[in-house]
Amino acid sequence: MEFSSKLLENAVYEMSQLPGIGKRTALRLVLHLLKQPKEQSERLSNAIQVLRNDIKFCTSCHNISDVALCEICANPKRDDSLVCVVEDIRDVMAIENTGQYKGLYHVLGGKISPMEGIGPHDLTIVSLVEKVKREEIKELIFALSSTMEGDTTNFYIYKQLEEVSIKTSTIARGIAVGDELEYADEITLGRSIMNRIPFENSIKAL
Amino acid sequence: MEFSSKLLENAVYEMSQLPGIGKRTALRLVLHLLKQPKEQSERLSNAIQVLRNDIKFCTSCHNISDVALCEICANPKRDDSLVCVVEDIRDVMAIENTGQYKGLYHVLGGKISPMEGIGPHDLTIVSLVEKVKREEIKELIFALSSTMEGDTTNFYIYKQLEEVSIKTSTIARGIAVGDELEYADEITLGRSIMNRIPFENSIKAL
Repeated sequence: MEFSSKLLENAVYEMSQLPGIGKRTALRLVLHLLKQPKEQSERLSNAIQVLRNDIKFCTSCHNISDVALCEICANPKRDDSLVCVVEDIRDVMAIENTGQYKGLYHVLGGKISPMEGIGPHDLTIVSLVEKVKREEIKELIFALSSTMEGDTTNFYIYKQLEEVSIKTSTIARGIAVGDELEYADEITLGRSIMNRIPFENSIKAL
Repeated sequence: MEFSSKLLENAVYEMSQLPGIGKRTALRLVLHLLKQPKEQSERLSNAIQVLRNDIKFCTSCHNISDVALCEICANPKRDDSLVCVVEDIRDVMAIENTGQYKGLYHVLGGKISPMEGIGPHDLTIVSLVEKVKREEIKELIFALSSTMEGDTTNFYIYKQLEEVSIKTSTIARGIAVGDELEYADEITLGRSIMNRIPFENSIKAL
């Protein structure tokens, strides 16, 4: 792509560094900003800069937060004997949206992935292990995605906690509510038969 | 969506104001920026701000340019008796990429669209008409998209130039090179038969 302006070229280049944004989309976005009032570009530009400079993470669960202890960790109504281990803030938001979970979270900040050069020390695993040893946590719920990396991370944390007596669980994998059996993949269907639950429990959930 | 941080919420909101970027995509982009080195966010933020503040438009063709007269208008090798009327800079880039056109451009900045509240005076039509009257332009090539708005804009400019003796043309519409006739839509196929060209001309293009 040949640009008639260095400024434009630079803005398009920086925009196209975002994931899933190619050069063409970046150009469309930048030209859109040029057509809008100047204030919109300023607000976007400021929002990005302020976020990046002033962002804080909760000292306990490592979730993104504007204060030292996030709203969830600071809430006395939450069950602090229950900690759900997740990858990032989007998972916290997804679980919070269900309204079904009243425990706390621990945000790892990713998964162990040798392919991407992410080792255990790039994540908040040390902080999690210390928290488990220090505080009275009864159960750790692993809610990472069920990929090779997710399973590896779960197992690494599990190994780190071998000497501590703590209950560990993972979220249930199975056929989604409303889905037809015939379209489910074999692994999911196989797991959902292996890990079947007493019928009485499924009635309770209604 | 419930956010644990006002800063995050604000950045996601501003990002989601861009066309085609929903709240979820905006969150993904912002979280990506948070994982990258601080410099990347700063560069993006600066690029947007500098572009919006310092952007200039060529005084002659209204294309985006860092100098008063853009590279194309300032190039003495270009044929200044030929002006191609386009909607925005992307069309200039597309035509330049063909390497087939040696004339100048005139960037309208959009199309007349009553639905979106864009009238003739929001575009650079007055400047085009003045340029045609002032300079020695032999031919005006309309290269707007063939939509209702494009056709309206073409016709409006054509009417403004009735008293001036200037040749006007539009780019050829027809079956794309390499396409099969049976899959072409009726309007395009109809036009390409109506506006057939002498066979000798098509040989020359090879």
